[in-house]
Amino acid sequence: MELQIFLSNEEIKYISIYKQIKQMVLTKQLLAHEKLPPKRILADQLNVSVQTVQTAYEQLLSEGYIYSIERNGYFVSEVEYPYSFEEQFEPLEEIQNDINKKISFQNGQVDGTLFPFNIWSRYGKEYFQPSIVRNAKWQGEAILRNQIARYIRKAKGIDCQPRQIFIFDGTQQQLKMLVQFLNPKNVGIENPGFHRIYHTFKQLQLEPKFVKIDEEGCIVPKVLIELLYTTPAHQFPTGSIMSISRKTELLKWATNNQSYIIEDDYDAEFRYKGSPIPPIAQLDYDGRVIYFGSFSKTLIPSLRISYMILPHHLIESFEQFMQYEKSTVSRLDQIILAHFMKDGHFEKHISKMRKVYSEKRKHLIEEIEKNLGDKFKITGDDAGLHIVLQLPNELTESKAIEKANLANVHIDSFSQFDRSDHTSNKVILGYGSLSLEEITCGIKTLSEVWF
Amino acid sequence: MELQIFLSNEEIKYISIYKQIKQMVLTKQLLAHEKLPPKRILADQLNVSVQTVQTAYEQLLSEGYIYSIERNGYFVSEVEYPYSFEEQFEPLEEIQNDINKKISFQNGQVDGTLFPFNIWSRYGKEYFQPSIVRNAKWQGEAILRNQIARYIRKAKGIDCQPRQIFIFDGTQQQLKMLVQFLNPKNVGIENPGFHRIYHTFKQLQLEPKFVKIDEEGCIVPKVLIELLYTTPAHQFPTGSIMSISRKTELLKWATNNQSYIIEDDYDAEFRYKGSPIPPIAQLDYDGRVIYFGSFSKTLIPSLRISYMILPHHLIESFEQFMQYEKSTVSRLDQIILAHFMKDGHFEKHISKMRKVYSEKRKHLIEEIEKNLGDKFKITGDDAGLHIVLQLPNELTESKAIEKANLANVHIDSFSQFDRSDHTSNKVILGYGSLSLEEITCGIKTLSEVWF
Repeated sequence: MELQIFLSNEEIKYISIYKQIKQMVLTKQLLAHEKLPPKRILADQLNVSVQTVQTAYEQLLSEGYIYSIERNGYFVSEVEYPYSFEEQFEPLEEIQNDINKKISFQNGQVDGTLFPFNIWSRYGKEYFQPSIVRNAKWQGEAILRNQIARYIRKAKGIDCQPRQIFIFDGTQQQLKMLVQFLNPKNVGIENPGFHRIYHTFKQLQLEPKFVKIDEEGCIVPKVLIELLYTTPAHQFPTGSIMSISRKTELLKWATNNQSYIIEDDYDAEFRYKGSPIPPIAQLDYDGRVIYFGSFSKTLIPSLRISYMILPHHLIESFEQFMQYEKSTVSRLDQIILAHFMKDGHFEKHISKMRKVYSEKRKHLIEEIEKNLGDKFKITGDDAGLHIVLQLPNELTESKAIEKANLANVHIDSFSQFDRSDHTSNKVILGYGSLSLEEITCGIKTLSEVWF
Repeated sequence: MELQIFLSNEEIKYISIYKQIKQMVLTKQLLAHEKLPPKRILADQLNVSVQTVQTAYEQLLSEGYIYSIERNGYFVSEVEYPYSFEEQFEPLEEIQNDINKKISFQNGQVDGTLFPFNIWSRYGKEYFQPSIVRNAKWQGEAILRNQIARYIRKAKGIDCQPRQIFIFDGTQQQLKMLVQFLNPKNVGIENPGFHRIYHTFKQLQLEPKFVKIDEEGCIVPKVLIELLYTTPAHQFPTGSIMSISRKTELLKWATNNQSYIIEDDYDAEFRYKGSPIPPIAQLDYDGRVIYFGSFSKTLIPSLRISYMILPHHLIESFEQFMQYEKSTVSRLDQIILAHFMKDGHFEKHISKMRKVYSEKRKHLIEEIEKNLGDKFKITGDDAGLHIVLQLPNELTESKAIEKANLANVHIDSFSQFDRSDHTSNKVILGYGSLSLEEITCGIKTLSEVWF
């Protein structure tokens, strides 16, 4: 039988033969167990070398489209599906980037314009070479663990060693590994609290218990909780700052119950009233505290570098648990960050940003007082990159957000972080990424649409 | 009472006062409820302004170290723990990098010397600006999802759209999210197979069922499996390449049982005999296949970028499941990679590396034949970056590895990937990262110590 095969100069001949026979097999133009023409005959027909046909047949054979019977020839295999080639595909529908025209008071954003891109790039140029091709160890690059330990000891007064420090690609990721490692049945979170943390626990098939917040932050739990997630330095979202006595009470609770406390210091470097606050981890002698740190607020979120500090007694079993894991953070970025810290740029940057954010905060408060007046109360502004704005009774949270949206101003609801029945009438205004002009413009707009 | 406070020019005065009183409180030099000196008196004693003392007292007050009674004064709070300051810490013990003097045939390594660092850096310079400061969307940067879709459609003949593509920071991470999303009770893996995948399932509290491998790769399962992990293009570790008929049988099994197949194409770009093999996903009309791809072998592992292609019908519920997640891959790297692909460098690089690896493979096989002889059988060498070496009976796997180690040559055991009782006498030789000279040297050394 003669196969209808078309050869051109555009494609290597054996590939054309292979492809077209394959197509015929898949579309059942050639039926199962039909005999293919002998190589010599097909070669003659197509005016190619026998070697060319042989290569095509060998490819079809190795992939199972045809089979051979010794001294008998080649036959079509049984295959089931119809073919599909790119020209048959639906046209590709590209995903477009969102175009964001709003003034966004979204919480948790940083000011990227002041990040020292040139300094970071210089390190990148220096360290981007074959030696960084292999993955970092799963614990993190040694030089970075060493630097973070140095920084933590100095800036936070936490007595820790580099071997207690483990590098991850984000708070949620390290929380997941920690939970899978500790395998608690009862976990607790602050309420109001980080919604992402709540959903992370749920994803892990846990039902978190809610622990109330008062003016000192998270209260001492009254129910069984083996792992408690807290934000003591700057409670999210209320902004409460935990006192030393509450911290020691929590530690006492944890020690008595052999529970663990996750202390998430997510934006603790930015404190506007007074010196930085001693973390619970500084006072922890029983190894109850797991300290979470991140570079998302101090540097830029898109780097995706975070770390946790484990108590000494958990190190060995955690390393055992994690031994088949791979590092999840770009090794180059880890090395760059380590040198960036070692050469003092990190602390310089934090220092600079603290002044910048302090100015934005001051400006935001002034604009609110000027344009919105004293019916709107500001709380939680002692630290961090957001404030809580209590709305007057006549303006509900949902109305406030709706009107803001219509005017192209994005604000976050408070209630998305509150899982109690308690109705609060508050919104959250993040100010990290806005310029002073945008802050003015945003607040002025809100004052127009809210009245 | 007079407090012993020392002021110097090195530290801001209110900070010194605050620190030292705090220290006294924590070390119980000042007892609970002791009255502190009035501000005016302490200011006189220390020869500072009343404002300075006031600031220090306010800090101590806000942190709860002291409390105040109106018109009565300031008193020491009750606190429990002894203090700990950096000077009290154990000296910091830095972690050192491992020094690796071995010739390593470790599997899965790539040749980093030929990665186009300068081209990548050029893109980095261009795109490293304030616009990349915010996290990418959790699904991945749009431009990268678009590029990967283009590449997959062209190079793999899989009819997919960008919206089916989700970017992650490694195969294990996307597997974890997929498993938590699908929540299967019965999962299956190939045996022999990737040990990391086995341990990932175990970490998620699943007991994977083992599916045998024959010369066509993974067989059709005979037991209930809802999610089956496979490496059809190049079975790890045996190297079998799955035929089209086996692929269609697996698809039929998956369709009949409404099961899912993960097709991990971890090193499918490097095929040395014939054209690239059509993936199962190319033939999948029922949406049973989840395709896993990674840039670890085609580019460099330390980038930490991988992706999965979900069937259309899973997209909506997956997006719902993942809505509180954050991106885990550096946004800058995603943007660089997208442009790197768009401008043709990716395909150029793969093409170049295919030749390079082909040459290393050929050289490895020649050296083995020359130095070890035909008692050693090579299998699984049709693709990828490693071969399987069957040892002669008189040389056990453990002895072979032990002798190699003593001679500073690292080789991987085969049995670490095999969880059956079947004893095999094989080792794995990866060759991706070795130069031709190192291959020669390594094999010569093995021939010396193995005989």
